[in-house]
Amino acid sequence: MRWARIEVNGEPTFAIVEGDQLAAVTGTPFGDYQKTGDTVPLAGTQLLPPVIPQTFYCVGLNYLAHILEQAERKGIEPKVPQKPDTGYRLQCALTGHENNVEVPVGAGERIHYEGELVAVIGKKGKHLSQEEALDIVFGYTIGNDVSARDWQYGDNTMWRGKNSDTFKPMGPWIETDIDLDALETVVSVNGEETLRFKTNEMLFGVAEFISTISQNCTLQPGDVIWMGTDGTSPNLVDGDVVDININQIGTLTNKYVWDK
Amino acid sequence: MRWARIEVNGEPTFAIVEGDQLAAVTGTPFGDYQKTGDTVPLAGTQLLPPVIPQTFYCVGLNYLAHILEQAERKGIEPKVPQKPDTGYRLQCALTGHENNVEVPVGAGERIHYEGELVAVIGKKGKHLSQEEALDIVFGYTIGNDVSARDWQYGDNTMWRGKNSDTFKPMGPWIETDIDLDALETVVSVNGEETLRFKTNEMLFGVAEFISTISQNCTLQPGDVIWMGTDGTSPNLVDGDVVDININQIGTLTNKYVWDK
Repeated sequence: MRWARIEVNGEPTFAIVEGDQLAAVTGTPFGDYQKTGDTVPLAGTQLLPPVIPQTFYCVGLNYLAHILEQAERKGIEPKVPQKPDTGYRLQCALTGHENNVEVPVGAGERIHYEGELVAVIGKKGKHLSQEEALDIVFGYTIGNDVSARDWQYGDNTMWRGKNSDTFKPMGPWIETDIDLDALETVVSVNGEETLRFKTNEMLFGVAEFISTISQNCTLQPGDVIWMGTDGTSPNLVDGDVVDININQIGTLTNKYVWDK
Repeated sequence: MRWARIEVNGEPTFAIVEGDQLAAVTGTPFGDYQKTGDTVPLAGTQLLPPVIPQTFYCVGLNYLAHILEQAERKGIEPKVPQKPDTGYRLQCALTGHENNVEVPVGAGERIHYEGELVAVIGKKGKHLSQEEALDIVFGYTIGNDVSARDWQYGDNTMWRGKNSDTFKPMGPWIETDIDLDALETVVSVNGEETLRFKTNEMLFGVAEFISTISQNCTLQPGDVIWMGTDGTSPNLVDGDVVDININQIGTLTNKYVWDK
């Protein structure tokens, strides 16, 4: 089952993807909901981020090749995490499928994509074992952890290097039926493949992160955990279109547009 | 005017503080609201955090004495920020006035308070000048940026050192009428004063942070910016009660309780 979010009469509204149509609902997919009977065609309808999380977790370093390449880029020894310490991001940066990533003036030349699997939490959870962890996952979507490396490495925090408006595209929808081990992430720039990796070959998997986070932080319906990325990105330029495809979920597409 | 948040019939509800009573409203203080006519006594009513922000900004290092003491604690050279780079925190950690701070097993001995002024945003804002910045502030409340230093310095991120459940008490309410330069922060442990500083003697003030953040991140009604703390904290122990008083606002009180 696929869950999207759209605007209906000016209000954000959850909608079920039914073939080439979107069926609007009242309520949320995490609790009670009811179809309103209204449908709109999927084609041409602007999709919102499929959820705005109360808490926005995002793992920084979770694939070996990405860690080695980041270290080389910074000119430092690679440091492979020995335990699953999650990072986090700002909700202000979220945007939907097919919205533009707007790159602010002064962000530098190293504007990158990071294609990520996103676990969407469906039930409240605290002190979960790894065996219990996946029971609270509602489904999965795709995230692009857009990064301005000059700011990321030059500032005291990652506030604007990772969290400027539109730097966190998420979507196009949440898919509830996923076989994690069968997933492959493919990133393309202007239709040319630039990166391909087995999505679930993480240092620490979804169950391990959920279990770890839940020892200290109560996970809530609608919370998201972005699972990190492998590989690297070329320096993107004005007008580049980035597709992040994860089989079984779909493709998250965003054009990068430079502010003038 | 003072705005609190309470639970009415199981639902979080904004309420106006009127003397020793709380007058519940429908709507929010940031838009349209109307008094319901229901009042409850302030005494004995559990206050919720006065707002749950969509985006939760929190400045790390913004007072000189705190920076020098943190550097000494870590055994490193003090690094004074040259520009206002905001940090951020997790919504899961928020709790209200007079709720317990629950210290998880394994958090170490260096469990500290950080008494902070909190600016609550009332209007949407982007690309604001410093002169325009304070116009979008709705009011001010108090935050305690509870910190488990072993985790803060030992983990790859501050996820549990700063953001474990209940580590971010905020309240007791939002005060809308404030003279920033007249504010003084006083922290007490079990009734004994441990720290006193001029609240507005920051490296970078509220207007400068709002202006800077708004160049990259759209501020929204209900967003909060915790402004950092001065000085240091003793190692707290099970049962300690921490009061953070800021004149003109009030006192945020929380007992620290160790999980067994």
